[in-house]
Amino acid sequence: MSSIFKEGIYDTGSYARTGTLDLNGIQIQTPIFMPVGTRGSIKSLTSEDIDELGYNLILANTYHLYLKPGKEVFDHFQGLKNFMSYKKALLTDSGGFQVFSLASLFKFEDDGVRFQSHIDGSHHKFTPASVIDMQRSIGSDIMMVLDDCAPYGSDTKRLELALDRTHRWAKESFAYWMENPGGQNVFPIVQGGVNETLRLRSLETLQKIDFPGIAIGGLSVGEPRPEYIRILECMAPHLDKSRPRYLMGVGTVVDILEGVKNGIDMFDCVLPTRNARNGQVFTSKGKINLRNESHRLSDSPIDPQCECKVCKTYSLGYIRHLHKVKELTAFSLSTYHNLFFMQSFMEKMRKSIEIGNFQGFYDHWKNLFGS
Amino acid sequence: MSSIFKEGIYDTGSYARTGTLDLNGIQIQTPIFMPVGTRGSIKSLTSEDIDELGYNLILANTYHLYLKPGKEVFDHFQGLKNFMSYKKALLTDSGGFQVFSLASLFKFEDDGVRFQSHIDGSHHKFTPASVIDMQRSIGSDIMMVLDDCAPYGSDTKRLELALDRTHRWAKESFAYWMENPGGQNVFPIVQGGVNETLRLRSLETLQKIDFPGIAIGGLSVGEPRPEYIRILECMAPHLDKSRPRYLMGVGTVVDILEGVKNGIDMFDCVLPTRNARNGQVFTSKGKINLRNESHRLSDSPIDPQCECKVCKTYSLGYIRHLHKVKELTAFSLSTYHNLFFMQSFMEKMRKSIEIGNFQGFYDHWKNLFGS
Repeated sequence: MSSIFKEGIYDTGSYARTGTLDLNGIQIQTPIFMPVGTRGSIKSLTSEDIDELGYNLILANTYHLYLKPGKEVFDHFQGLKNFMSYKKALLTDSGGFQVFSLASLFKFEDDGVRFQSHIDGSHHKFTPASVIDMQRSIGSDIMMVLDDCAPYGSDTKRLELALDRTHRWAKESFAYWMENPGGQNVFPIVQGGVNETLRLRSLETLQKIDFPGIAIGGLSVGEPRPEYIRILECMAPHLDKSRPRYLMGVGTVVDILEGVKNGIDMFDCVLPTRNARNGQVFTSKGKINLRNESHRLSDSPIDPQCECKVCKTYSLGYIRHLHKVKELTAFSLSTYHNLFFMQSFMEKMRKSIEIGNFQGFYDHWKNLFGS
Repeated sequence: MSSIFKEGIYDTGSYARTGTLDLNGIQIQTPIFMPVGTRGSIKSLTSEDIDELGYNLILANTYHLYLKPGKEVFDHFQGLKNFMSYKKALLTDSGGFQVFSLASLFKFEDDGVRFQSHIDGSHHKFTPASVIDMQRSIGSDIMMVLDDCAPYGSDTKRLELALDRTHRWAKESFAYWMENPGGQNVFPIVQGGVNETLRLRSLETLQKIDFPGIAIGGLSVGEPRPEYIRILECMAPHLDKSRPRYLMGVGTVVDILEGVKNGIDMFDCVLPTRNARNGQVFTSKGKINLRNESHRLSDSPIDPQCECKVCKTYSLGYIRHLHKVKELTAFSLSTYHNLFFMQSFMEKMRKSIEIGNFQGFYDHWKNLFGS
């Protein structure tokens, strides 16, 4: 198939690189951060806000959308993009990770996973084919295969079982997808926990299949950062250059820095939006807790160097007040700012790679957001 | 003093009228509906949204702002308008009504009311002068006097006591305000429950004082609608034509129709915003409950005749989904629509008075929103 990824500039001192992802005509500059619209909206924002912020690739969660509003709704509305009036590109996970982390009960079977809804306890089953069908109804530009993400701390036996299952399902998914590939892409998911041998085996196995991209799962799931870095470093030299690499569920500013340094092109995480709702915002000087008493009389914006409309309009003192009294507007203003920050952060990172200053960029931001 | 109100067109078949309120250079067409920004934001919206919706007079609650963020913050920021980045006109209540309805305990004294905060039980006292001081710090264009709003069902003795207290405090407030009137206006509040004699006595007493406008309190506090209408009708012929009349805390579409019919110029109510958050929206065909199963696959906007950006962008099916899964975006989209509806409703009402069709307008909307 024709490639969806065009390599850009490579950093000389690391595996960092820029690139362009072409998803059905929508051009996405990488490395990119994707905000998460779990249930069909980026929490507290409108689709107009997403456009205004310049995001042209966002993520939605198949597990949540499968349960509510359900497949029939997406079939009727011809996909989530139409449903939510969003015109750009969309990536969906397979729903597997949410089954393991949210469902009240789940049980593996050879051909999939049975689970009970965390909402009403109802019984369901996901298979490699059924989650592709669901993602086809959602209409994402990038779909994910069903995988087995063993929890952090799993022993080697459990990790090997996860690998076998993940690889078998990836092959089934590929075959099922290829029956009728259409315009939607599918990425497989590398597993293996913090075991380097298994990680490399998984990467090698999955890269042999002609998927248009590759995802890395099971990281940033509780392991200490040195473990996280060690696994990224062990994989970096072996990542296929011609395909986009997506590190799932990551992350913090520092985790993204480590990811890009090790050749990752795509990231998604709820942290910038969730932290915003909890009153933590990101600035050019580091993180700020909006609820701090010290901001009570502050006339300054959240970040004097930020060009977002929230920083141009509102004071720290006002946004602190809204958070303290739990006004809904606190959530949307803070979320808007954090997503503007992430866009700007990624844009500056791409620029730093282009001008050969990724190491300087990395040092600067790691120092500010070290913890 | 120079009048803040210019009479417009009078309806020939009722007391309905149009007019223009001039608040420190901001021209407000009446009859007007004011959305409520209790704690310094219209819940779920931004100040940019308020501007975009075209509201140039909004209400904030002194009781809430006094408790949080407190007077010191408004003194520092030079008023709520600066604090929330809102440039148009502002009206504040005195805080009295919230003391009676929200405070965990309150006790009248000759010169004011002692109460305990509903947030932390802390002890406070409001006096006619102190609530004007607080409203001066908030910087509203229209301030309200402290009054005694006896609950619905109070006996005549209690209503008379409330009247005496309300009138005495109104006189004190006027004297205190006149020591240094500045650009902020003060309105007194007519009380008297559903007792016509007391209502007329209160109206007459307060209209004798040279306040720039007059407010009517203690209606829409639980009385059946016929009682509400009876009291409005008894006052209508006696309302001073040269001053704006403000009916506090009202209301529903039908209550506003009855108010305008009886000469009211200004209204405020949390219903359009609160109902929106609960999934009830207003349309050209009546009220809609967004959570209804029947909207699940609806491609139509909330109201095909509505010109608001929510109706131009999103389907009923999508907004229903957001409400069903309690996404924050559901609140802002629904609130935006309802406030657009209220603006449009009031604009059409003013037009109907101007062209001599208020009765037709009244019949049409009363029929649609009768309950």
